[in-house]
Amino acid sequence: VRRGYPEVIYCEGKTPEQVREIAARMYEKGSDVLGTRASLDHFKAVKEVCDNAVYYDVARIISIRANEAKKTKGVIGVVAAGTSDLPVAEEAAVTAELMGNTVKRIYDVGVAGIHRLMSKVDELRSFRVIICIAGMEGALPTVVGGLVACPIIAVPTSVGYGANFHGLSALLAMLNSCSSGVSVVNIDNGFGAAYSASLINRIGE
Amino acid sequence: VRRGYPEVIYCEGKTPEQVREIAARMYEKGSDVLGTRASLDHFKAVKEVCDNAVYYDVARIISIRANEAKKTKGVIGVVAAGTSDLPVAEEAAVTAELMGNTVKRIYDVGVAGIHRLMSKVDELRSFRVIICIAGMEGALPTVVGGLVACPIIAVPTSVGYGANFHGLSALLAMLNSCSSGVSVVNIDNGFGAAYSASLINRIGE
Amino acid sequence: VRRGYPEVIYCEGKTPEQVREIAARMYEKGSDVLGTRASLDHFKAVKEVCDNAVYYDVARIISIRANEAKKTKGVIGVVAAGTSDLPVAEEAAVTAELMGNTVKRIYDVGVAGIHRLMSKVDELRSFRVIICIAGMEGALPTVVGGLVACPIIAVPTSVGYGANFHGLSALLAMLNSCSSGVSVVNIDNGFGAAYSASLINRIGE
Amino acid sequence: VRRGYPEVIYCEGKTPEQVREIAARMYEKGSDVLGTRASLDHFKAVKEVCDNAVYYDVARIISIRANEAKKTKGVIGVVAAGTSDLPVAEEAAVTAELMGNTVKRIYDVGVAGIHRLMSKVDELRSFRVIICIAGMEGALPTVVGGLVACPIIAVPTSVGYGANFHGLSALLAMLNSCSSGVSVVNIDNGFGAAYSASLINRIGE
Amino acid sequence: VRRGYPEVIYCEGKTPEQVREIAARMYEKGSDVLGTRASLDHFKAVKEVCDNAVYYDVARIISIRANEAKKTKGVIGVVAAGTSDLPVAEEAAVTAELMGNTVKRIYDVGVAGIHRLMSKVDELRSFRVIICIAGMEGALPTVVGGLVACPIIAVPTSVGYGANFHGLSALLAMLNSCSSGVSVVNIDNGFGAAYSASLINRIGE
Amino acid sequence: VRRGYPEVIYCEGKTPEQVREIAARMYEKGSDVLGTRASLDHFKAVKEVCDNAVYYDVARIISIRANEAKKTKGVIGVVAAGTSDLPVAEEAAVTAELMGNTVKRIYDVGVAGIHRLMSKVDELRSFRVIICIAGMEGALPTVVGGLVACPIIAVPTSVGYGANFHGLSALLAMLNSCSSGVSVVNIDNGFGAAYSASLINRIGE
Amino acid sequence: VRRGYPEVIYCEGKTPEQVREIAARMYEKGSDVLGTRASLDHFKAVKEVCDNAVYYDVARIISIRANEAKKTKGVIGVVAAGTSDLPVAEEAAVTAELMGNTVKRIYDVGVAGIHRLMSKVDELRSFRVIICIAGMEGALPTVVGGLVACPIIAVPTSVGYGANFHGLSALLAMLNSCSSGVSVVNIDNGFGAAYSASLINRIGE
Amino acid sequence: VRRGYPEVIYCEGKTPEQVREIAARMYEKGSDVLGTRASLDHFKAVKEVCDNAVYYDVARIISIRANEAKKTKGVIGVVAAGTSDLPVAEEAAVTAELMGNTVKRIYDVGVAGIHRLMSKVDELRSFRVIICIAGMEGALPTVVGGLVACPIIAVPTSVGYGANFHGLSALLAMLNSCSSGVSVVNIDNGFGAAYSASLINRIGE
Ligand SMILES: Nc1ncnc2c1ncn2[C@@H]1O[C@H](COP(=O)(O)O)[C@@H](O)[C@H]1O
Ligand SMILES: Nc1ncnc2c1ncn2[C@@H]1O[C@H](COP(=O)(O)O)[C@@H](O)[C@H]1O
Ligand SMILES: Nc1ncnc2c1ncn2[C@@H]1O[C@H](COP(=O)(O)O)[C@@H](O)[C@H]1O
Ligand SMILES: Nc1ncnc2c1ncn2[C@@H]1O[C@H](COP(=O)(O)O)[C@@H](O)[C@H]1O
Ligand SMILES: [Mg+2]
Ligand SMILES: [Mg+2]
Ligand SMILES: [Mg+2]
Ligand SMILES: [Mg+2]
Ligand SMILES: [Mg+2]
Ligand SMILES: [Mg+2]
Ligand SMILES: [Mg+2]
Ligand SMILES: [Mg+2]
Repeated sequence: VRRGYPEVIYCEGKTPEQVREIAARMYEKGSDVLGTRASLDHFKAVKEVCDNAVYYDVARIISIRANEAKKTKGVIGVVAAGTSDLPVAEEAAVTAELMGNTVKRIYDVGVAGIHRLMSKVDELRSFRVIICIAGMEGALPTVVGGLVACPIIAVPTSVGYGANFHGLSALLAMLNSCSSGVSVVNIDNGFGAAYSASLINRIGE
Repeated sequence: VRRGYPEVIYCEGKTPEQVREIAARMYEKGSDVLGTRASLDHFKAVKEVCDNAVYYDVARIISIRANEAKKTKGVIGVVAAGTSDLPVAEEAAVTAELMGNTVKRIYDVGVAGIHRLMSKVDELRSFRVIICIAGMEGALPTVVGGLVACPIIAVPTSVGYGANFHGLSALLAMLNSCSSGVSVVNIDNGFGAAYSASLINRIGE
Repeated sequence: VRRGYPEVIYCEGKTPEQVREIAARMYEKGSDVLGTRASLDHFKAVKEVCDNAVYYDVARIISIRANEAKKTKGVIGVVAAGTSDLPVAEEAAVTAELMGNTVKRIYDVGVAGIHRLMSKVDELRSFRVIICIAGMEGALPTVVGGLVACPIIAVPTSVGYGANFHGLSALLAMLNSCSSGVSVVNIDNGFGAAYSASLINRIGE
Repeated sequence: VRRGYPEVIYCEGKTPEQVREIAARMYEKGSDVLGTRASLDHFKAVKEVCDNAVYYDVARIISIRANEAKKTKGVIGVVAAGTSDLPVAEEAAVTAELMGNTVKRIYDVGVAGIHRLMSKVDELRSFRVIICIAGMEGALPTVVGGLVACPIIAVPTSVGYGANFHGLSALLAMLNSCSSGVSVVNIDNGFGAAYSASLINRIGE
Repeated sequence: VRRGYPEVIYCEGKTPEQVREIAARMYEKGSDVLGTRASLDHFKAVKEVCDNAVYYDVARIISIRANEAKKTKGVIGVVAAGTSDLPVAEEAAVTAELMGNTVKRIYDVGVAGIHRLMSKVDELRSFRVIICIAGMEGALPTVVGGLVACPIIAVPTSVGYGANFHGLSALLAMLNSCSSGVSVVNIDNGFGAAYSASLINRIGE
Repeated sequence: VRRGYPEVIYCEGKTPEQVREIAARMYEKGSDVLGTRASLDHFKAVKEVCDNAVYYDVARIISIRANEAKKTKGVIGVVAAGTSDLPVAEEAAVTAELMGNTVKRIYDVGVAGIHRLMSKVDELRSFRVIICIAGMEGALPTVVGGLVACPIIAVPTSVGYGANFHGLSALLAMLNSCSSGVSVVNIDNGFGAAYSASLINRIGE
Repeated sequence: VRRGYPEVIYCEGKTPEQVREIAARMYEKGSDVLGTRASLDHFKAVKEVCDNAVYYDVARIISIRANEAKKTKGVIGVVAAGTSDLPVAEEAAVTAELMGNTVKRIYDVGVAGIHRLMSKVDELRSFRVIICIAGMEGALPTVVGGLVACPIIAVPTSVGYGANFHGLSALLAMLNSCSSGVSVVNIDNGFGAAYSASLINRIGE
Repeated sequence: VRRGYPEVIYCEGKTPEQVREIAARMYEKGSDVLGTRASLDHFKAVKEVCDNAVYYDVARIISIRANEAKKTKGVIGVVAAGTSDLPVAEEAAVTAELMGNTVKRIYDVGVAGIHRLMSKVDELRSFRVIICIAGMEGALPTVVGGLVACPIIAVPTSVGYGANFHGLSALLAMLNSCSSGVSVVNIDNGFGAAYSASLINRIGE
């Protein structure tokens, strides 16, 4: 199924050489290329063969643009709490941007400081779809879900320790959200959330 | 947040009398009412006070319409495999309909008989959003996801035994789907899937 | 260690006759008696021998007062969301009252409707200690924790289905709360929360 | 909510540079600063910019005092068994001290050598609140809970192997304590226990 | 391997008729017979054909003696805490007696009331082997293990709720006991503990 | 039981020296030798003493042939999806070949791109037994099982992250396959699958 | 894929009326019909419309034969230990027979009494494929696997209590079998084992 | 409780310096010293101060003898299967020897090669108590238990991969052993098994 999106390479577990080769092959065919979970070494290898490759370090994403990027009118909100969740939030935000979406980040709005989140309600309500990232108790999508009327894609992160069990606490919390309109992707899967949000966002274009 | 949907009562764990009372109160205020996980006894109690209450027995849903139902142009596809998953599929389908969506059911398309599913590809591609219900190995959303370009809400069911662990197998399978564009709700949560799908569907109206 | 509290009987798994006999024995020694997880049948059996026994049906508690109850100046807040969590909330509230505390209930303040909770901030800040009950995603203690400066005892409930795993989702969420000052008791353990809160509350008397 | 405590940096997963920068910013605003889960490298980076930074190596804590420390009259007891639990115990003890509490450590009182613990009963009874750290079978809070009448904050540690499952055994044991008055924080969360204990301790000041 | 013990029937999941038939067959061959997990109905069926059958109701054990019972000089101590653990404790104690051991019960010595346990130290030290039963936090074998120099067989019970997970908390606690000399049998397996203890006890005869 | 297969060394956790010594000993006795989970270092050590040792790097297998290899008429199909599963698929394929089987690989047929799999149906139906490798949602054996009438040995892989739990998602999915004729081996156990498939394949020779 | 086997109805969770209707429909088309997990009530309903329906009560199977049964020359061995595993063993054995296989049962050969099993070695070696059923520690397939050179399908059963976790102990044991040639089906899935064994057995016909 | 055994240091997680210091202190008091989970570095540090320290490398044990070792008449059998379990088996065997027991090792008797085990039956029956070590499916104690009449201490090991879950498979199998007379210690806890076995063995001296 052609969806008009970049070709994607999941870099984790691949050597820089393997990623370079796959990326070059795709790029030669005229595709935009998106590499996720990419280390700096992956990027350097790709850069050797694709001069216009760009690296987003927090998001750990490599992008190679073959075509002009378009921007949607509808906006995807990417909402997250602490600094520890930023790699996943940025993976979602950068992926969504590279898929042609207009993206607005709202960070540092953890549920333990509800007033900051409340001060963003108008902005939250302006989005067509929201990606909501949270680790630990994973409560953010539920609170946001109670404030807006658009669909929410929730991303649990593996940030935490002990009874966090590598993201299980946030995952279970999100699956049990008492706000309706929340659906969930795998732990740390910022890419997948962006993909779903992107499919939703373009319905309105 | 007012979203223009019926008021919802989650009937499980409530007595028929409690449900009757809550329903009556909502109905008097002019709301449409939707009761999920409702037994026949719940329905009979509601029927005593709301003459136009309707019961969907497979879906275990009570509906009381106070207002004219509209229907969307965009269609939500509800896709499921075996007969055991039908209660959850119907909970999703009926909820989506009662929220004003045009719904099309495609049942009996399990991945173990892939040819039946393949014969429905054109229809699958006509939907704006798909709700995909599956128990046991929970593979249906992945296969469907590879055939269509619209967002998919996946619902794992608790149907199975042994290493199924009450729906855990299907839940984990769906969270790990290798098809992009799939997000997941709680085990057996047909209602929640319909709610998310409905929020997505109306983006295109 | 004598703490001046009623003697407690955990009624679950005991026959009405066993509870009656234990209660009678305690009562004859001049103790106040508190029976938790008590059915109506437990209560009827106790009532036969202790005329002043009282039954709290939502809390499932039997109380027999031998002595005048005192009330603390400091107030324990009991904060909960939906109606399904009320049995546990009431187990906590009634236990705390029977231990001599002044108790204030704030119910129906789920995190999915954050505005109702925000309208209670002044009251929340007036408590010396808060017991916070929540099922499903268990987010309430974190949000409340961000609004107040007193200790919070969090009680996960087993309310939910599917990936809730009988309260595990709420339990893990609470143990991973990103609000400091939150400690946790066992799933559905309203009694234990009240006991801890009561020990804390009397520090200020 | 201002509670009059130091600002806290959770150093794990942050680079020395990030911690130095955050600490400097906080310190310049006149706050006391507390860095938890800090390595020696974190400390060295902070020390470059804040001359009066102090490092507690067992506790893995960095402290920068901007203001005079006060000491409570009420004492927090920090009770632990073996030497393996000391990092967590010290995280709790040092945090509590830096939050202005008078702290008394009682170490090396494991339940497998009950006589040593019994010889401390009078001291245990002199505390206003107790933080009780234990790994493996996590029994210490229950035994201590039976000896005192003050609230206990229990901290399970991840010390152990095999069926310990990284602290799960101690966590479950503490949540199931048959002593009342025990509430629990996350595995290895000495900081969180100190925070709760500190909120409790100042009720009596 | 003939060990000179009664033939054993595990009655759970068998009909009264099945148990009667098996018991009769064994008895006719001149064996002593021991039925565990036996209901009153199982017993009544057996009694019809074996007049000297005896029922131990708390232990849920049926015994039919074909031969004179001997008693060991060495004593097996059966140590337990609350009344809820008594069915398992009695399954152990009665099984051990029916296997020819001299048994001494020490009940009501939970670790939350350590003084009662301490008052039994001399008696505890007189046993050749101890069976130690505990539910919830499962701490009793560790504390007892620190007081005696004989081997301990620990039996976790499924008594509890919530994070007890049907005996998992006690099982893990016992496997992680920081007292040496403790080995563990399955949750609720009083029979198995008695069997092991009996093999140990007769080493000294 | 002699089955006419090579002697097998499981190299993981053994030093190169240990593997060299075991391999040499077996080889001297005239056996074919197969080393699984072998690193390049293991191979180099073996090569020192067995000149005809061969290394299969993707499969991580060392082979030393003492005897002429035969090939079966019946073919074992080795079917897998993505490149990440290739090490396990190759462990299966190479093992099967070294056990004397004719093997046909069908790779890159993930269920998210069902058309590629469908284009292989005739070939799939020509196999006597199929080894089907899949990670993540583990759906491949179910879909293949619906297309063929031969037995399938399914191998879950540990490829994935988050709610994949090191292969648990694929393992559970395969155990719950709604296609009949699928049986399952341990996560990543390509060797074991090849062994079972080989025993099946030679039934038809 | 037509495999020449009876049509199968999984009766659990279906009403007697539903099963009757499905069975009648299949039977009218000339198919053999096999109903698994069937209660006596299911059977009675089927018997009303299909006079030649037969009920296997231990196996909980309904069979309706429309066609003459053939018998294979190769024999499937069904090997099990205690009486508690018999329902699953019989589900496997009867299913295999109804699929046209010659079946030989070897029961009462638990690994705790290894001599009985050893006395059957010759018979075990005469089978073309073995179905091996075991609950509790699930060791039987490993021991049998060491004695024979044919493929083994292992079926864990849910028989047991406590740390058995509804068959998890046997399932994990079988997946970790140190005998090669063992593959595993879902807990209690006698039907699935028979299906796999049947596909294997007919390779040799 | 003085039991006449060496003082024990659990070296894992301690620095060589810490171990040296603790060992020296104990040794100076005239105690025998036993260090478990000791690396070569731990040993070298100890050797610097205690000239007669001995290192058992497979067992990872340091021993310092201050007193003459005695040997029991009764023999402890240490029974294990593959080479991978040897470190745990040797931890058990060496510990038992250093506690004064006569020890006999029977290795390489895995249940997948039952004939080797059967050839040892007479020797197995000569032991007073058996320590039985097994990983993976953990079946060895059950089979041995059916062959002997002495108590068995079972030790699951963490050897394996995939669904082994770090020893969980063997642990659960052993707890569910259908042989009576088997009790279990923590995963990899060879030391604890030796301690229990030693307490049992000296009953007969
Ligand atoms: N089947 C369902 N599964 C999950 N949540 C539901 C379901 N039906 C209703 N709900 C939610 O439950 C709320 C009503 O709960 P209550 O107030 O307890 O009746 C609704 O607003 C929905 O968000
Ligand atoms: N050891 C600890 N464990 C859990 N939470 C902590 C710990 N130390 C600090 N915190 C919390 O982490 C917050 C700071 O996190 P951060 O902003 O990422 O540095 C503090 O406000 C505390 O609530
Ligand atoms: N309460 C019990 N828990 C565990 N195993 C038991 C119990 N009672 C009896 N057994 C074992 O079950 C065997 C008898 O099982 P069965 O032949 O099914 O009656 C005995 O030989 C014992 O090994
Ligand atoms: N990759 C593998 N996974 C599981 N088992 C294996 C594997 N490779 C070899 N084995 C088994 O391990 C045995 C050899 O183990 P070892 O004696 O420790 O080298 C062989 O006989 C096989 O049964
Ligand atoms: Mg959060
Ligand atoms: Mg399915
Ligand atoms: Mg809630
Ligand atoms: Mg401890
Ligand atoms: Mg207890
Ligand atoms: Mg896959
Ligand atoms: Mg068995
Ligand atoms: Mg083994």
